Amino acid sequence: MTHKPTLAVVGATGAVGRVMLQILSQHADVWGEIRLLSSRRTAGTTLAVRGEQVTVVTLCEEALEGVDVALFDVPDEVAAQWAPVAVAKGAVVVDNSAAFRMAEGVPLVVPEVNPHAVRARQRGIVASPNCTTLSMIVALGALHAEFGLTELVVSSYQAASGAGQAGVDTLRAQLSLLAAEPDAGTAPGGVRRAVGDGLGPFPAPLALNVVPWVGSVRDGGWSSEELKIRNESRKILGLPDLRVTATCVRVPVISTHSASVHARFESEVSVERAHEILATAPGVVLFDDPGSGDFPTPADVVGTDPTWVGRVRRSLDDPQGLELFVCGDNLRKGSALNTVQIGELVASEPAAS
Amino acid sequence: MTHKPTLAVVGATGAVGRVMLQILSQHADVWGEIRLLSSRRTAGTTLAVRGEQVTVVTLCEEALEGVDVALFDVPDEVAAQWAPVAVAKGAVVVDNSAAFRMAEGVPLVVPEVNPHAVRARQRGIVASPNCTTLSMIVALGALHAEFGLTELVVSSYQAASGAGQAGVDTLRAQLSLLAAEPDAGTAPGGVRRAVGDGLGPFPAPLALNVVPWVGSVRDGGWSSEELKIRNESRKILGLPDLRVTATCVRVPVISTHSASVHARFESEVSVERAHEILATAPGVVLFDDPGSGDFPTPADVVGTDPTWVGRVRRSLDDPQGLELFVCGDNLRKGSALNTVQIGELVASEPAAS
Ligand SMILES: NC(=O)c1ccc[n+]([C@@H]2O[C@H](COP(=O)([O-])OP(=O)(O)OC[C@H]3O[C@@H](n4cnc5c(N)ncnc54)[C@H](OP(=O)(O)O)[C@@H]3O)[C@@H](O)[C@H]2O)c1
Ligand SMILES: NC(=O)c1ccc[n+]([C@@H]2O[C@H](COP(=O)([O-])OP(=O)(O)OC[C@H]3O[C@@H](n4cnc5c(N)ncnc54)[C@H](OP(=O)(O)O)[C@@H]3O)[C@@H](O)[C@H]2O)c1
Repeated sequence: MTHKPTLAVVGATGAVGRVMLQILSQHADVWGEIRLLSSRRTAGTTLAVRGEQVTVVTLCEEALEGVDVALFDVPDEVAAQWAPVAVAKGAVVVDNSAAFRMAEGVPLVVPEVNPHAVRARQRGIVASPNCTTLSMIVALGALHAEFGLTELVVSSYQAASGAGQAGVDTLRAQLSLLAAEPDAGTAPGGVRRAVGDGLGPFPAPLALNVVPWVGSVRDGGWSSEELKIRNESRKILGLPDLRVTATCVRVPVISTHSASVHARFESEVSVERAHEILATAPGVVLFDDPGSGDFPTPADVVGTDPTWVGRVRRSLDDPQGLELFVCGDNLRKGSALNTVQIGELVASEPAAS
Repeated sequence: MTHKPTLAVVGATGAVGRVMLQILSQHADVWGEIRLLSSRRTAGTTLAVRGEQVTVVTLCEEALEGVDVALFDVPDEVAAQWAPVAVAKGAVVVDNSAAFRMAEGVPLVVPEVNPHAVRARQRGIVASPNCTTLSMIVALGALHAEFGLTELVVSSYQAASGAGQAGVDTLRAQLSLLAAEPDAGTAPGGVRRAVGDGLGPFPAPLALNVVPWVGSVRDGGWSSEELKIRNESRKILGLPDLRVTATCVRVPVISTHSASVHARFESEVSVERAHEILATAPGVVLFDDPGSGDFPTPADVVGTDPTWVGRVRRSLDDPQGLELFVCGDNLRKGSALNTVQIGELVASEPAAS
């Protein structure tokens, strides 16, 4: 593109949208006009981006007129309806929802792993992965390039903000209710009684608890979130037969997803070589010296861009296996940052002849 | 034993000891005298057991005189020093610490899995496993009996009380500090600033966080807790070559450990058959219907005796693999209950001729 492209942020008022505005304000400014769109509910509010107050407008055909790149951070069904409209108006859509991730002709992109896939878009849409997949895939992509990945067993520790602003508000409300109940947490059913009906988007109390269910019910007892990790990892890495098993668990953390990952490779691995790869991989911070207290935790990772990796061990009974613990801020690399990075890749493409 | 045996609870004032007194008060009363022992610090306090107030006395040779069974719930080094003294006085020791678990001639017992091992004691000591191993091993033992276990990949979600009363107090104190700081949890370093030096027994803040480190540093980047899961599972199940990999993570839950378990077996598995086995296994509650909100969480399991199992799935890429999510109250089955159960097995032995 030769002029500075016009950007639309669709869903600017949401949990992801607000972080996206921060990131756009911090990155090198490749954009011309930046338009902020949301639903009728919040249209008219003003939000700061690049140091200026911008009034949010309702998502409609007119608001998409003249847009070159549209970053979509809205629920699946809103993206499914409106992304094709934006494409018809001439925009390239970068979609953060699940609506198009597994669709033919829609690349699923992580700029550190498969940047070239952006150009393979056949429908004007590029998808950004699920936040849980994103919390680990940059590190796994780097290890795969050297060792050849064959299997993943993933257990997640997912933050409340993965369920949007409603998730954050719910966890905070539950924590203040529990603050007044010193015995909740040791008495059977005590947490449930203290939080009452205030479960918000979660299927069980989240404060002082962990909830082994994220998403909706799929065949065989799987959750949609667990299948996303499998399908999306395979698509991003270009490994359609990768063995993947995931168990997704919500934990009482505000933001930043973590995952305990058991990874098997085609060749023998060593902690030393894995450390070298991770220490130099773009978008990864290696933080791995437990004796000195160095391992990633959400409280230390929140608000930062990279994927943090620690607890690197070679499986004791398998020279081809590695164990890792990874943390990534689900509102930054896990969604807003990855979407902005893809948008910047599109903006940097030479103009079509 | 023909007379009602005399019982000593060593460490009666601790997190595990206090729950043990509750359990002794609820179970069929097989004991004669029950003596409560602790350190000089708390000796003289009174605690209720079987509806009576009993004065706690200092652990010393005299206090062990005439004891038939001694349940030890004290730190490793105290058990290492005093268990042999109790044995020399004629007691059978059931030890809840790590001091003797891997020792030759000391059986490591889970009554639902390997009750007969109690009789194989050669040193007068029977050990009770680590709480994390105990949170899953009853369910895995039942599945192993049918399918033949070959491999475990475990990620834990361990509660604060696994670090004793100090762990509980620390988590509560951190939560009240954070209640006054609505932005901690989203600001980089915010949780650390809010909790300050009050880390207690944990190597990082636990409130609004998860901490992928439990125990002390071992070779290869492993923690002592992770190696315990491997070594103890092998010993309890009598499978010295079982492939086991574990990642231990502390979560902001007061009591009840959870684990996400990937288990491989010698034969093909099915969810249906696994459900049948788990539904009838002693000490196990199957709670597995996510569509109706049925999966175990610590908030619902705390204060109960069994191992709760849910999220049973067959690995999508492996007909011999099962995924499970298990919860067990680390202060009940995870320590106090298992120890009392072993003590009751010993008490029920026919008197030696
Ligand atoms: N949270 C994460 O960690 C994460 C990570 C990866 C991907 N995602 C995906 O990103 C998307 C946004 O998630 P979020 O967490 O930011 O959710 P959120 O906090 O609920 O925000 C939703 C946004 O969508 C807007 N919206 C809803 N309905 C709309 C409509 N009919 N027309 C126009 N705008 C509409 C909302 O506008 P109003 O304010 O006007 O309602 C708001 O700006 C979802 O698809 C989610 O799955 C989220
Ligand atoms: N918490 C769990 O989930 C769990 C699970 C499985 C196994 N365990 C094991 O069980 C044991 C007790 O754990 P806990 O969590 O109950 O710890 P805790 O809350 O710290 O209690 C420790 C107990 O040991 C006593 N003690 C300490 N030093 C002593 C000494 N020199 N002489 C006599 N008594 C002494 C303490 O008495 P004072 O009150 O007088 O200090 C107290 O009763 C440990 O070995 C632990 O690893 C714990």
